[in-house]
Amino acid sequence: EDEAYFDSYAQLSIHEVMLKDRVRTQSYQDFIYKNEHLFKDKVVLDVGCGSGILSLFAAQAGARHVFAVEQADVVHWTRETVRENGFEDKITIIHGRIEDVDLPMDKVDLIVSEWMGYFLLFESMLDSVFTARDCWLKPGGAVYPDSCALWLVGIGNPAGHEAEIDFWNDVYGFRMSSLRRAAAIEGRVEMVNPTHILSQPVLVKRIDCCTDTVRDLDFVTNFSLHITRSAQLTDLCAYFEVYFEANCEHTVLLSTAPDKPPTHWKQTIFIWEQPFDVTAGEEICGSLACCKQAQDPRALAVTITLGSKQQTFLLQ
Amino acid sequence: EDEAYFDSYAQLSIHEVMLKDRVRTQSYQDFIYKNEHLFKDKVVLDVGCGSGILSLFAAQAGARHVFAVEQADVVHWTRETVRENGFEDKITIIHGRIEDVDLPMDKVDLIVSEWMGYFLLFESMLDSVFTARDCWLKPGGAVYPDSCALWLVGIGNPAGHEAEIDFWNDVYGFRMSSLRRAAAIEGRVEMVNPTHILSQPVLVKRIDCCTDTVRDLDFVTNFSLHITRSAQLTDLCAYFEVYFEANCEHTVLLSTAPDKPPTHWKQTIFIWEQPFDVTAGEEICGSLACCKQAQDPRALAVTITLGSKQQTFLLQ
Repeated sequence: EDEAYFDSYAQLSIHEVMLKDRVRTQSYQDFIYKNEHLFKDKVVLDVGCGSGILSLFAAQAGARHVFAVEQADVVHWTRETVRENGFEDKITIIHGRIEDVDLPMDKVDLIVSEWMGYFLLFESMLDSVFTARDCWLKPGGAVYPDSCALWLVGIGNPAGHEAEIDFWNDVYGFRMSSLRRAAAIEGRVEMVNPTHILSQPVLVKRIDCCTDTVRDLDFVTNFSLHITRSAQLTDLCAYFEVYFEANCEHTVLLSTAPDKPPTHWKQTIFIWEQPFDVTAGEEICGSLACCKQAQDPRALAVTITLGSKQQTFLLQ
Repeated sequence: EDEAYFDSYAQLSIHEVMLKDRVRTQSYQDFIYKNEHLFKDKVVLDVGCGSGILSLFAAQAGARHVFAVEQADVVHWTRETVRENGFEDKITIIHGRIEDVDLPMDKVDLIVSEWMGYFLLFESMLDSVFTARDCWLKPGGAVYPDSCALWLVGIGNPAGHEAEIDFWNDVYGFRMSSLRRAAAIEGRVEMVNPTHILSQPVLVKRIDCCTDTVRDLDFVTNFSLHITRSAQLTDLCAYFEVYFEANCEHTVLLSTAPDKPPTHWKQTIFIWEQPFDVTAGEEICGSLACCKQAQDPRALAVTITLGSKQQTFLLQ
């Protein structure tokens, strides 16, 4: 399981996609360069450093030392990058799982990490950040981003439902109900057209990266969805925001909302197998339960209840 | 190796992409429905049947029986599809590797398969079709598609070179030469804008699916590239065509050329680390060597020589 994960992450294309996501990378750059006081002469731990860009930002911002931990083979390139940019005395690359490595120091002043997956929690890398925090962070030290939030919004996109679900009713003249069923349980990573939104967004999870624990990442939240437009509700769309705020002179918000500039995370959509009509002004009670899958702890099962409807989706 | 491959193929999204590729699927449908004489009362073997669409087409066209072999777990869905469409007496699904399965008959009249990968040969599934042919095809029987061709064409796309290669010279203020080197050896699956073409296409490989052997799939071809436009040559673009012709009343051509309707195979591009100027009317001698990688036999190493330049690319 783990090996396949790190194998794929070692590939150039993944780091290329992340670096070329300017919304993502510039948010971290802004946070670090515009809050140099947080980094100046501090010891920093970068959890899952990948290509090393956050460590380079931190070193450039005046960190006394950066420990950059990464399990994937990309670290061989990252080591070369650190040398090439003259930071070999400031950045120490450590190849291994954060859970296993022994860092050559007692504690760090702060942790930075870009751990977010699709639907915020897919791949569960936040678990590793929590482990790093509990092992290596000084009392009073901070984790950045320091908090994040997961939002849900109602979507009316009948053409999408037709293409993704009803497609299987007539595939070149044949019916494929088994694939229709499989299609209906998949959470999908897609760009949502903001004109399809038909509710106010509702907060389904807030995470404090400095104090929450792994246990908090399996959760059930009750909510009330306020409908703003009468239409057929076909999907729910989830997106996340992360916040760089604690002790910041310049706070930074990284948003993956459908009406914000696109990111490589896009949005996550959950398509109802049976869409239903909703009316502007209506409040629909619902709940969202998120739990890791036993067979594959990087995968998530998301059960959504809305009014009298319930459906379980997999992110895998 | 093999397990990861079949695991990923078991996922719905892969079959969804292939079925929704109408150029691909309708080419097979046209070939089968417009050449019913080839299928009527015949015993057919479908190698790597996936969702079962080719087997359903063959059964619908009057095949006496279809044996559909697939190693991926998608066969559980495919079995249900076959029953749902009333073909359980006509189509036998066999879960396993074609190299290992024992078919409950002596020989088949014809083989159909959609085995093509990126750059035609990526993933080497044609090897399995050849094995099936040598084990199970009657003397005089045919394999469809019965032949295919791999083409190369010169491309001038300075903006693409800038974005893919020179990007690494200044990544948010840092130089990443190791990632630049990694970027320069990757063959890339991308849609090529046909206005960027600056040579005539040149044939680099022709495969006769009825007579060629696995040995023919590692090859070196010399060619001469005829330049049609003076510009900077930044990439070579490879694309393939497959032909349904032998004994056909209606022949079918499935093309993945950049100036044809798009397919999920897109095109494969090889970006020169150092682009160079070419002149309309010029003939540039070159060669293309393609060989399987020892560590991962689904991966390919492609070495291209053009004039005095040589570069090796990986498809992995």
